[in-house]
Formats: sequence, structure tokens, C-alpha cells
Amino acid sequence: MCGIFGAYSFSGEDVVKKIYYGLYALQHRGQEGAGIAVSNGKNIYSYKGLGLVSEVFSKEVINSLRGQVGIGHVRYSTTGGTFVENCQPFIVNSTLGNLAIAHNGDILNSHILREELEKQGHIFTSSTDSEVIAHLLVKELLRTGDIIRSIEEVSKKIVGAYSLVILYNNSLIAVRDPYGFKPLCIGKDEKDNYYISSESCGLDVINGELIRDVSPGEIIIINRNGIETYRIEENPGGSTCMFEYVYFARPDSIIDGISVYNVRRRLGKVLAKEEPCEGDLVSPVPDSGVTSAIGYSEELGIPYYEALIKNRYVGRTFILPSQEERDLAVRLKLNPVKPIIEGKRVILIDDSIVRGTTSKRIVNIVRKAGAKEVHLRVGSPRIISPCYYGIDMPTKEELIASSKSLEEIRRYINVDSLGYLSVQGLIRGIGREDLCLACVTGRYPTDVSCKFCCK
Amino acid sequence: MCGIFGAYSFSGEDVVKKIYYGLYALQHRGQEGAGIAVSNGKNIYSYKGLGLVSEVFSKEVINSLRGQVGIGHVRYSTTGGTFVENCQPFIVNSTLGNLAIAHNGDILNSHILREELEKQGHIFTSSTDSEVIAHLLVKELLRTGDIIRSIEEVSKKIVGAYSLVILYNNSLIAVRDPYGFKPLCIGKDEKDNYYISSESCGLDVINGELIRDVSPGEIIIINRNGIETYRIEENPGGSTCMFEYVYFARPDSIIDGISVYNVRRRLGKVLAKEEPCEGDLVSPVPDSGVTSAIGYSEELGIPYYEALIKNRYVGRTFILPSQEERDLAVRLKLNPVKPIIEGKRVILIDDSIVRGTTSKRIVNIVRKAGAKEVHLRVGSPRIISPCYYGIDMPTKEELIASSKSLEEIRRYINVDSLGYLSVQGLIRGIGREDLCLACVTGRYPTDVSCKFCCK
Amino acid sequence: MCGIFGAYSFSGEDVVKKIYYGLYALQHRGQEGAGIAVSNGKNIYSYKGLGLVSEVFSKEVINSLRGQVGIGHVRYSTTGGTFVENCQPFIVNSTLGNLAIAHNGDILNSHILREELEKQGHIFTSSTDSEVIAHLLVKELLRTGDIIRSIEEVSKKIVGAYSLVILYNNSLIAVRDPYGFKPLCIGKDEKDNYYISSESCGLDVINGELIRDVSPGEIIIINRNGIETYRIEENPGGSTCMFEYVYFARPDSIIDGISVYNVRRRLGKVLAKEEPCEGDLVSPVPDSGVTSAIGYSEELGIPYYEALIKNRYVGRTFILPSQEERDLAVRLKLNPVKPIIEGKRVILIDDSIVRGTTSKRIVNIVRKAGAKEVHLRVGSPRIISPCYYGIDMPTKEELIASSKSLEEIRRYINVDSLGYLSVQGLIRGIGREDLCLACVTGRYPTDVSCKFCCK
Amino acid sequence: MCGIFGAYSFSGEDVVKKIYYGLYALQHRGQEGAGIAVSNGKNIYSYKGLGLVSEVFSKEVINSLRGQVGIGHVRYSTTGGTFVENCQPFIVNSTLGNLAIAHNGDILNSHILREELEKQGHIFTSSTDSEVIAHLLVKELLRTGDIIRSIEEVSKKIVGAYSLVILYNNSLIAVRDPYGFKPLCIGKDEKDNYYISSESCGLDVINGELIRDVSPGEIIIINRNGIETYRIEENPGGSTCMFEYVYFARPDSIIDGISVYNVRRRLGKVLAKEEPCEGDLVSPVPDSGVTSAIGYSEELGIPYYEALIKNRYVGRTFILPSQEERDLAVRLKLNPVKPIIEGKRVILIDDSIVRGTTSKRIVNIVRKAGAKEVHLRVGSPRIISPCYYGIDMPTKEELIASSKSLEEIRRYINVDSLGYLSVQGLIRGIGREDLCLACVTGRYPTDVSCKFCCK
Repeated sequence: MCGIFGAYSFSGEDVVKKIYYGLYALQHRGQEGAGIAVSNGKNIYSYKGLGLVSEVFSKEVINSLRGQVGIGHVRYSTTGGTFVENCQPFIVNSTLGNLAIAHNGDILNSHILREELEKQGHIFTSSTDSEVIAHLLVKELLRTGDIIRSIEEVSKKIVGAYSLVILYNNSLIAVRDPYGFKPLCIGKDEKDNYYISSESCGLDVINGELIRDVSPGEIIIINRNGIETYRIEENPGGSTCMFEYVYFARPDSIIDGISVYNVRRRLGKVLAKEEPCEGDLVSPVPDSGVTSAIGYSEELGIPYYEALIKNRYVGRTFILPSQEERDLAVRLKLNPVKPIIEGKRVILIDDSIVRGTTSKRIVNIVRKAGAKEVHLRVGSPRIISPCYYGIDMPTKEELIASSKSLEEIRRYINVDSLGYLSVQGLIRGIGREDLCLACVTGRYPTDVSCKFCCK
Repeated sequence: MCGIFGAYSFSGEDVVKKIYYGLYALQHRGQEGAGIAVSNGKNIYSYKGLGLVSEVFSKEVINSLRGQVGIGHVRYSTTGGTFVENCQPFIVNSTLGNLAIAHNGDILNSHILREELEKQGHIFTSSTDSEVIAHLLVKELLRTGDIIRSIEEVSKKIVGAYSLVILYNNSLIAVRDPYGFKPLCIGKDEKDNYYISSESCGLDVINGELIRDVSPGEIIIINRNGIETYRIEENPGGSTCMFEYVYFARPDSIIDGISVYNVRRRLGKVLAKEEPCEGDLVSPVPDSGVTSAIGYSEELGIPYYEALIKNRYVGRTFILPSQEERDLAVRLKLNPVKPIIEGKRVILIDDSIVRGTTSKRIVNIVRKAGAKEVHLRVGSPRIISPCYYGIDMPTKEELIASSKSLEEIRRYINVDSLGYLSVQGLIRGIGREDLCLACVTGRYPTDVSCKFCCK
Repeated sequence: MCGIFGAYSFSGEDVVKKIYYGLYALQHRGQEGAGIAVSNGKNIYSYKGLGLVSEVFSKEVINSLRGQVGIGHVRYSTTGGTFVENCQPFIVNSTLGNLAIAHNGDILNSHILREELEKQGHIFTSSTDSEVIAHLLVKELLRTGDIIRSIEEVSKKIVGAYSLVILYNNSLIAVRDPYGFKPLCIGKDEKDNYYISSESCGLDVINGELIRDVSPGEIIIINRNGIETYRIEENPGGSTCMFEYVYFARPDSIIDGISVYNVRRRLGKVLAKEEPCEGDLVSPVPDSGVTSAIGYSEELGIPYYEALIKNRYVGRTFILPSQEERDLAVRLKLNPVKPIIEGKRVILIDDSIVRGTTSKRIVNIVRKAGAKEVHLRVGSPRIISPCYYGIDMPTKEELIASSKSLEEIRRYINVDSLGYLSVQGLIRGIGREDLCLACVTGRYPTDVSCKFCCK
Repeated sequence: MCGIFGAYSFSGEDVVKKIYYGLYALQHRGQEGAGIAVSNGKNIYSYKGLGLVSEVFSKEVINSLRGQVGIGHVRYSTTGGTFVENCQPFIVNSTLGNLAIAHNGDILNSHILREELEKQGHIFTSSTDSEVIAHLLVKELLRTGDIIRSIEEVSKKIVGAYSLVILYNNSLIAVRDPYGFKPLCIGKDEKDNYYISSESCGLDVINGELIRDVSPGEIIIINRNGIETYRIEENPGGSTCMFEYVYFARPDSIIDGISVYNVRRRLGKVLAKEEPCEGDLVSPVPDSGVTSAIGYSEELGIPYYEALIKNRYVGRTFILPSQEERDLAVRLKLNPVKPIIEGKRVILIDDSIVRGTTSKRIVNIVRKAGAKEVHLRVGSPRIISPCYYGIDMPTKEELIASSKSLEEIRRYINVDSLGYLSVQGLIRGIGREDLCLACVTGRYPTDVSCKFCCK
């Protein structure tokens, strides 16, 4: 996952602070690194770094970036090395024109496209999909000289998920792939500045107003000629990632017209109907289970308690590597409120289970705090297949639900009862059907064969 | 406010990591600075710095501090300059023996004591009360040669709030003032390590077990002879700060036998009985109003919603100083969830109102998000008098409730209705009467005349 | 200017520390940034950063770079922005094979080559010549599959100065352009490790032995097959930069068989013969004038004194920007020794004059310290033309000697007499004729028309 | 060793920048830490830190320190721990008045005085002599109310070396002990600002003029009443440290009216007369032997060469701890110029020999570079006794000349011949007799018995 943001000022205002605050509000989508590129029409000024937005950008850096159009990116922490070279936007230092790209998503066939380009002599300096897209785009631009046609051509070649913001000379361009895997919306403020943001919460922070979502397969270009919209021909039907609603997006965002907060609450209610439970209290696994837990509690009339308190200052503790201290890592983050747990039947609500190891540890904490019974209800269906569209997930083997039965999972996690939301319940809770449910159904909206061909 | 922690290992284990993690769990009591001092029987090793515990202490620093007994401190951010010189523990570099002191509280007559000491030739290098206590203690030690008698003598001279951990040669000493203003408890773990902590959450994190609270007026000394307890003669009756329960302590802590979480929930229920309200939803002002809001919602049967989402990554943003961006500072921290606010009668629950300015801004955010009505209910009584015992509060003039009537406050904050908890309701909610209620009643448990004599 | 270093271990030793120390010894060739890339046969590991070698590389970084072959680079501080993106080695992240390049020199036609490549769809991420060379090299590699042939082809296309170290899969390759503008030598140590270094001082530090200089137009490849040498066909005759001897190289280096220290001393002697002067003492402008001043003093039998003392700790002082303090910047660096200057006729020896502004300030300091007369003798001829081969120089207009007569310069600098070394004297002092003297004669060894065509 | 600096502005100018630049010029006297304290008449503002002056003080810090009178300190790196607590000025946070002290020297009986003070209840927070002096001073101030009388009384109690700058309320006070061990001078600038500096080079940098040296036993007080001078009664006769001239002070300083540069050159000439040597070249051990080597060369008519080149960028390299790399540490710093050494009889000039280990390593480097013979001449007598007055020296046992004969030292260092300057030659070279020669004669000017009594 990642977060992207773009800004264009018709009034000629500097946009860098807007992008800075926009990325700030999108920080939950990626904490590994951040970058901003702005253009004053002549040059692109950019800055990238590892860490939180507030750590990467000092006042001095922000003041040194000047331009009326620009884009930004927050990068999600993935496994493997962390290098500033992989931070975005990816910038092309070119005499053909200024180009910068920020990308949210995952291109399934990027390794194949990359190999082809390398055979033609192209040189890559990072391992990002953005660089592959940039190379393809420049190639098309050389052929056609037209950015929109070039994007259309590139979209025919790349398979996968891509919400993009592109800075090309004086234009800001937004692209959402034909499946609409990742969210992307457009907004404006009172001063006639236009914004593109991964989520609407990025607009709120700068007093912007949500105009509408970018449609799947839509290309929007904003420049001195105004705002124009184009459509990528391919029209496979929308498949927006259900996990944006369940876990990833901020609750105050509205995605494709649907409030994330309301979805989470509804998921709790649907879960309560599908998987009711007897107990003395309903408690979330903080923070992601909070809203569903409230819905669950409300539906069943069982009181809502916060049985686990999260330490807000965890940040970057180092844990010294003895056995004893590995358990400590969990205790540093979550502390049980013993007086409300002791002797009680606790119903825990979590948004999802991936490997099961964290759930197991949390249940253990609650049991040690004196719970009579511990029940677990999960606000999404069993995850049985990995995501190929940009959600960081373990291999199929590591997904506990891919091989274990419900009863086996229950025993592993050590709860008295376990219940998942059904796929139908999930659809009902979200309130739309054009979702990507690949991780819970195994049915991928796109061809995924290239994931197995060579790597 | 501050947090203090002490550790003594009968088994000869190094205690520095225990103190580090203990301070970590007490981080909410002070984020300005942190310090640790440990003794290996011969020398005191110490390290202090400005910032969070995780920022001050690197792995290398932690590994360089070795000792079987030690103390630590987290410092609260107060107005005025921030200097590492004011960080604690305060350490005496002495040939008479090793001494280090960490203090939570406020000594009312410290300026008078300090002046007397200066007249006798004592030299001060910081402006902390801890240094005054250290000087008095050393003076008594020179006279009596006995640490317990010295503490007793010092306690006769100092007026105010003090929970102390003292490292003296090979002994760990805990002191709680006769009023018991600030919490302090003792715990142990399976390996026969003993701990002193401001709050029980500091014990949980290191797998320690709460033995009991240190009583008001109690001195506990732990050394190779075992654990002994002494009592400061003065016995004015307990006056524990009610704000520890209402706002300051972590909800998973147990203070003087009472669960903070349970108190907060009860306060919400009592508030609901005393100040009921008609509305469509109950929402906390996060994070401090959450638990009371749940209690309030439950009591009245009005659904609980999180109408305001807190950005978890706010940290150290710089805000560029234009007018527009001052409002932005609030929006960066709190974002309203419009879909659940629009057209609704919102009942906001906050733990307390000090100046009223923040409340006013938050209400404005909720109104702008489309609320039909905004009502505010406050989980503590009107604050009318400043605290002289260590809670950072503005002057009497700045306390909105000290001069304004309920109706005037309501108009200022711009809510449709406003209700505070009563003093009796507060006592009932907390479940004990031996509380310091000075800030809500104006009746101070100690003489406070020296606060007005000379400064 | 820049410094480059390469290492290859036949015994399979890790070479990163060798490169680190080698760069350390080459630090005088560039202080802006440093980088190292090593290969273990499978992957390239690299690290770059801004600052001195000792600042860029921590122990942890050095220990994380593992490989039996590698290259390194120190970057010279040029005008304009300082970005880590421009640090070298330039690394190609490619499935075709591992490639890293470090470059010392300047390619005159790189902007033309770059434009051509961009028209073919190549994308550039930095503004360095190294990236242009990398692109050309990869293109040829794709065509020929042979690294030596590819280098030969690329050398036909690029015009200018280039000493290169290249890491290609498991091979270390050294290239010196047919003119031999920049120095480059090869050495080995007792453990059968081979090294390439800009200067021989880089070999000394790691106990290496200088084997010989890389010849102009020579390509040396070191890999498991041993060491092979190739020759670029073009043979224009050597034109080694005279400034390496005069100023740039470290005095303990030997370049193309000639000791830099001996050259500088001889230049002082030749200068004394060509431009003798009456005076009470000879003093260098430290540090670069020291050795010539000793030679000058010796030749004329006038005592050698250090009339100006350099502050060894200047580093990164900030100078607050008032007028008074601009003068201070010079005083911070150089302090006159008044007792030896007062009432004396001082003969100052400097290695060269570029703009004349620094000389003017230094003369002013010496006059203020009470000198009766100040004479200046310069250990190189008048600089009248800019360098296009990588020495950072101002434009022709800013070169004081390009437009002003000797007498005008004397008056501007405010000395009683002024004397430069002649071009013939320079050649005699260095002891070789195959030198690039473009900056003092205006005659460039290569075509330089592309410098004027388009930029 | 340490450096101290003071500034007083009669015109009401802010002095902090003057102190900053003054410390900058005194940086050679201490690189471990730095501190500045200024007073605006009401409050003392101070800042201290570990590292070079340019590292400790940022622009922001300098701008935040405001006052018309102030003092500063650079701290020498001594063995043992490095703590910011030991940095100076030592500041007393007192209601009796503002007091800050910076000290250069060593108080022999400070441990005894400290113990007495501790018995009286005084508390120490550092292990510095400055704190002991501050305590004694405050004690006397309480008794007498007069700062000059207090200093006089304190001077009767302390035995040892002390040049002090004291900031007391609005006064700047300079004190030099009755022996005048350490240098201290007074200067002024055109704007009627007065300065106290360890060396005159501190005045030069800020365009100040040296008025005169502070006399041994003199107290100078500068405040709104003007400048007054007092004399400590005790008058043992001056004993200024000879090492200031030989090694420690900057060559451009004038100490007690004598130019350090001229002394060093004369020492070379006297050494040449006392210990002539046949050889092909004279070379200094850089940097401290340079000036004496020039004098030596001139006297004997043997050419002066720089056979060893110092790497100017050594700074803070880490050396990885294998055997091979310990030798590397020397090679990183000093590189021989082989072409001028090979086959030659090299006469090395060093300023002094302490342990002999470094000399041995350097001689080894010169031999390996091919010298036919290596001779060593030393610009000071044999060091046979430790310094108790503040020069960092090893114990008597570690001083090579305390137990070994000349011939034994020669063999250990492995030179063909070895010659030291005589004590009489040293006196002649410096040109004054009122010197402390304790380290070369074993005769200490003060009682030193307390160094052996208890520690």
C-alpha cells in the first residue's frame, strides 16, 4: 500500500504545503518514506527521504520547493531492504520535458516489461514499478508526443493495480486503473486549487471539498486549459479492494461514495447477526477493530469495553533480543485492563486474521489477565489467497486460513469460539458488489499467470 | 506531572532494561525528557536527555548502564525553557556515598528552602525541586548518618506533593508524601526483582505483579537486608489527586486499589444521570473522553459513535505561521466523520475543560461537519482554582470556570447545552473520599500561603 | 575533480575496507560525497552519501557491504545543488548483469549523447556523465555481449576526460582516456589483492605497492582469468592535466612516474630563477604553496617562514552575514604571525591565481600585520582559459588573467611586485611535455566546439 | 589543557558571537567540548555540548544567547568518560546573584577541599575543579559580600594552576594564579569591547588588539565602573608552563610578550647547535615539529623537506580492530614521501617525546620508505616527571625518559642517533627564566604532597 497526492493551483499559488499536509493525512497508508516533486513550469524540484512525513520534510526543505503543480507519495514499509532509492515520486531528468510519477498499487507483469526494456537498452536504478511505468510512458511519448495517448497505450501493456498521479510539464494527471483496485478522488478548495488524493481525508485536512472519485479507467488531466477527462478503453468492471474498507483506509474517508466509518460499523452488525456470541463484554483489538466492535456490541446489546489499552508512544523501541523480551514487544504495545477482564467472558473483535500469530498472542494476554472465556469474531472472511495488487501479505502457506479448518484455527489461536464474517456478509456490509475479493475467494479479477511463470 | 520508576534485584540481575521498559509504560506521564541512574554498589552510572524514552536511550547507552539497583524518571513538558539540566534523576557526585533522586510532584516552599540553603553556601545547578530535596537530604545525612531518619527530617520541612524514588548506595527507597497526592506502588516479578512505579502499568509491561500501593506517609527501603517499611509521623489523611483518575493515569492502571478504567466508565454513567441529554449519538473527544463517553452512552441508551478521528502520526509537525494554518493545526489532529455527524444531534463527552479554547475549536469542527445540534458533557466538575501540587494548569484568570457562569461558558464554547459532573458525582464515580479536590473546590489540603508570600 | 578507487581480491577477501581506506586517502580529491559498490558475484551492494568518507560510512554500513570486488568514489564539491542522487558509483539495477561505474573527469559531448539517448527512450535520473556512460555501455553490451568491445565502442563516442573504474559482474575494469587527462594507477598488496586508484597515495594507505600507471588509452580488466590489458585504438598522445602536479594531487603521490612533491619543489626553484625577488623572508600561502615556497627560498637563500597560520579546525563554521563578519571568514582560516611580518619585506608564494579575490584578501592581512613590502610569486602560469576536462573553474570573464595585464593584476591584488612562472618553466619543473596546458595556453587537446554549440 | 575566553561590552553590544569566534581560535586548546554563558544583567543564558565549537553551537543557539558580558570554554579531551556534565562554564543557579566560572588549569588539592565541603553539606554534580572553586567562591561571597575579597580568600586555599574567567552579575573577572602557570591576556577592539583570552590568537580573530598579559597573581574586574586590577598577596614568582611555547599554544600567539613562533624557530636553532647532525635532509614530524625543523635546517644549512604528509581529513575514522589495521591508523594520518626519503639520511625533528611509541612508529614508516639513516632531534629536554598542573601526561612509569637512558631510548625508537635539547637550551630558546620546568627537572614550583596523600 501507499498513498498518493497531487495539487494544481489555477491561481498560481505554491502548492508544496498543500501536498505536505495532504501526505500528512495519508500517513497511515505508508510510513517507510515520503517524497514530493513540484514544478514551476521550468524545473522539477523534489525531495525524498525515509521516515514519516514530519521527519522527512523540514521547514527549510518545504520552503525550498516551489511550484504551482506537484505530486507526493508516502511509501509503505515492505519486507526487505529500505532504501531511499525506492522512494517516490520517480523523477525523469529529461530534456524532453519534466516527468514525475507516484504510484499506488502493484503491476503484476512489471518484471516481464522490465526485462523487455532492458533488452532494448533501458537502464533501471530502482526496483520499483513506478520506474517501469515511467520508462513505458517516455517511450510512448517519444512515439506519439501526446501524454494522454501515451497513458492509454501504457495501460494496455500493464496488468495490475495502479492509481497514479503524474506531473508532466505543467500538467497534473490522475489515472485509476480500469478495475479501480485502489481508491483515488478529486477535490478542490475555495481558492480554485484542485487536488487528487488517495483518500478524501487528504482533502479534509487542507479544507478541500470532495468533488467525486476518479472512476475506474479514468484519466483526468488538469492544466492551464482546465480539466479534461478521458477513458481507458478497456472496461472490465470495477473491483475495488475490499480491504480498504475493512482495514486500510482512515475511517473518516469516503471511498467511491461510501463512508468507511459506516461500513465498519455495519460490518460489526452483520457479523453480530451471522456470528452471535454469548459473553459479558465486547472488546476490540485496538485500533483496527474498534468501530466493528461498537457495531457488534450495539447489535447484540452486550456492553462495549476497551479490554486492551494501546501504548501511544511505542514508535521505535529497540527490543533486546532475548526470548523473554520478544513477548515484551507485545506487552509494550497492548496492556490488558485486568479489572474488566477478570472472571469475564470476553468477546474480542478483530478486523482480520492473516497468520494468526498476533491473534494467538493477544488471546494469551487476555487469558492471563483472568478472562473466564475468550471468543473471537472477525470482521472479514477467511483470507485464503495472497494479494497480487499491492497489499503486503505473506505467502499462501503462511495464511492460516488457506490450509487450516475453522476448528483448527480456533485451537491454534486458543479461543473458546471463533467466527468469521461471510463473503456475502462482507458485500452486504460494504454495500457494493464491484469489489476485489480475491484474497477471500481466490478468484482474481485479472490474469495472474505471470506471477508464476518465471519468478 | 512526571513518572518515576525504581528497580532492585535480589538476584543480582542488571536492572537497567527493566527501568527502561518501565519508563516506556509511564511515557504518558511526561514526554519532555527521561533519565536513568543505576548503581553497581560502587559507582552510579546515569544518562539523561530530552525527548521520548525511545529517543533518549539507544541500545548502546542502555548496555553501558550496569547495576543491580536503579531509578528512572520521565519529565513532563512544562512552559518555559527545556533544558537537559532539569532532567532527572538528580545525582549527587559525592564521596559520602552515592545518591540519586527522582521526584513526581511539587514542593510549595522549595523557593524558601532553597534561599535558606543558598544563604548557607549551597550551590544549585538546576531549578528543580529534586535538587532542593537532595540538598536537604545530604545535610541530614551528614548530621544523622541514617537515610531513613534523614528522609523523616526532610519530610518535616517540605510542604507539598512528592512521590520519590531514591537510590542511596545499594538501597532503593520509595517515599510517598503524607497526603498521598501522587500515586506510587510496589511490585515484584518471578525472579525476585522488586519495583517501584508511579502506576501499575509500569509493572505490567515487565511482567511484574502489583503487590500494593505505597501508603501516604510511607517510606519503603529495599536492600540486601530485605524490605523494610517506615512511616512519616505526620498523618493528615489522604488527598490523592482526583485528576489521576479523570485524565492523567493510563486506564489500565490501578491506583490505590481502584481501577482507573472502571472509574472513567462510572464517571460517564454518573454524568449521564446528573446531566442527561437528548441526542442522536454520543461521541468522545479523543482520546481522553473515550471511556466516559462509553459509560454515558450505555447509561442513556444513545448509540456511541466516534465522530472525530485522531491522526495517530501527528508528532512533531511544524505549522507554518499564517492564520489559515493555525486552524490547520487542529484539523491535522482531529478530523470529523461527516457522514455520521451530518444532520445529527451530537453529544460530545470531554474529561475536563480548562481554558475552553480547545473545546470551542472542536465544537466548531463538529458544527462545520453538519451537526444539527452540539451538546457538551464534561466528566469532571468546573475547574476554578489552580493546582499547586504539580499539575500543569494556567493561572486562575485563565481558568474559564473561575470567572464565567455556566451559561457564559456555554455561549463561549458555542454548544446548545453544557453540563458538568458535580463534585459529589466525582467522588461517587471514583469511589473514594480521600481525594485532593482543590482545583474544583478551592480548598487546599496543605498550607499554600507560601505561594503568595514572595514570588 | 573526483577520486576513484577499485579493488579485486584473488584470495576471496572482502574488499570493502580496502576501498574505504583508499577513498580516505583520496579525500582531498572530493569532499562533497562518497560512495562504494561491491559485488559478491551475485548482487551489488552499495552505499552513497553526502559528506566526508568518515561521515558517510559508519562501521555498520561498512560491515554490511560484502564482496570480493568493488569500486568507490569521492565527489568534488561543485557549484549548484548538492544531491545524493549525483553521488557515484552509478549503479545499474539490471537483469542483464551487475554494473557499477565511477568516473573522474568531464565528458564534453555528454549533453549531445544524452539527448540522443533520450530520443531513443532512455530515461535519466541524475545529471551525471557517469549515467550517460552507463547507458552507452549497456547499449553496446546488448549489441556485442562483450564488455571490452563495448568500452572500446563507447570510447569512440565520448569526447573528454575520463578515468573510470567499472564493476561488471565479477570483473574490475580500469579505463583511462586516450589523452590520459586524469591520473590512474594500478597496485597490489602481499595478499594478492589488486587495486586501481586515482593516485598512488591510495595504495600506500593500505600497504599496497604501486605497479605502474594505467597508460592513456589503456583498458585493464581483472577477473578470475587474471589481468588483461587492451588498448583503445585512438592514440592522440598524452595530455595529462598539469594542475594535478601543481595543486590538486597529494604531494606524496607519484603520477606517471613523477613525484608530485619533487615537482612542486622544482617549480619553486624554477620560479626563483625566472622571477627572483629581494626580500627578508619567503612565506607560503598555506597549504598549497608550502612546497614551492621551500624550493623558492632554497634557490635564493632567503629564509623560509610561515607568516600565515592556518586554523586546522575551520570546518563548517557558519558566518553570520554582516559585512564585518565576511572579513572574519578569512581571519578564521588564516592568521598572520605579526612578530615575523612587522617591518619585513615578505615574498608570498602561491600555487596559482584564479579570480584574484582571495589573493587580494590575503595580501591585505599581511599588510595589516605590518609588512613593509609584499611581493607575490605564483608557481604556475597565468590562467587564461577555462578547463573543460573536469577542473572546477570560473568562466573566462572571471579569470583575472584572461583580461588584465600583469601590471593591472599587481595593482588589483595590491602587491609591490608580482611574478608568474612561464609555460616553459612549468614544463621544465614538471619534467614532461605530454601535458594538458589548455588553461594557460588556450590550446585544447580535443575538439571543444560542442561546448559552444547549444548550451 | 583548556581554553577560556571572556568578553565585556561597554557599548552594550551582544557579545556571544565574539565569544564564539574567540573559542573558535582557541579550539586547538580543547576539542572535547565547549560552552558559553552570557548575562544580560538579569539572567545567565548558557549552552554547552560535546564536540568542536562549530558542532556544539548552531546559528539558532548562538542567536538565543543574549548579553553584554559573557565567558566561554573549550575542553581538552582527557582519558576516561566524556560527559556533558563536565563541560564548562560551571554555572551557579542562585538567588544570591549570577555566577559562572571557566577554568584552565589543575587544582592539586581539589579532592581535599571537596571532601571538606561535602562534610559541610555541599553537593557536587560534576567532577570538575571549577565546581570546587565555585563552591568556595559562593561560601566566601556569603561571608564577605565582596567578589574580589572572595577571590583573594579562595586563592589562599587552592594550590595549583588556574587561569579563570568569571561572570558575576554584570562583571567580567579574570584571574591568573600567582605562578602564572597558564597564559591569559587582555585585549580590546575599536568598539570599546574588552576581551580576556587564553592566547592572543583569540583576540586576532575578532579584530581585537592585545593590550597586555594578565600578570601572575593578578585579578582584573571589568564592569560599568570601568576596569580595576587587584593583586593576590602571595608572590612566589612566575612559573609559566614551558610547554605552551614548545607545543601547546598556536604559533601566532604572543605569550607574556614573547612570540611563540619565534620561540619555536629559535629552539630549532639552539637544538642544531647543541645536537648537530650529518644528513641529507631535515624533516619535521608534522604538524608540531614544523617550525623547529625550519630553524634546525637553517642553522645547519641542510635542506628542509616535508618527508611525511599529514592527511588533513583524518577526523573521526573508525578503525576496525584487527592487528593489521592498528598500523593502518598511523598510515591514515601520516604518509611518507618515498621519492625524497629513498636512500637518504633523514633528520627528523619532533617537539617532544612522551611515551616514545608514536616516535617508534613514525621512524618505522620512514625506514620502510627507504631511508638510509634516520636521526631524531627533539626540541625539548627529556620528560622525566608528570605534570600536575593540567597537561595531560601519562604516569611517571610510562614516560620513556624517566627510566631509560639516552642510548636505551635510541634503541627503542630505532634511530641511528638521538639528541634532545638541554634545559639551558630550552630557557635560552624561550628567552625567559620564569618557567615551570617541572616535567623536565622534577622540581615542582608548588607543594605537590597532596597528590600522594590519599588518592
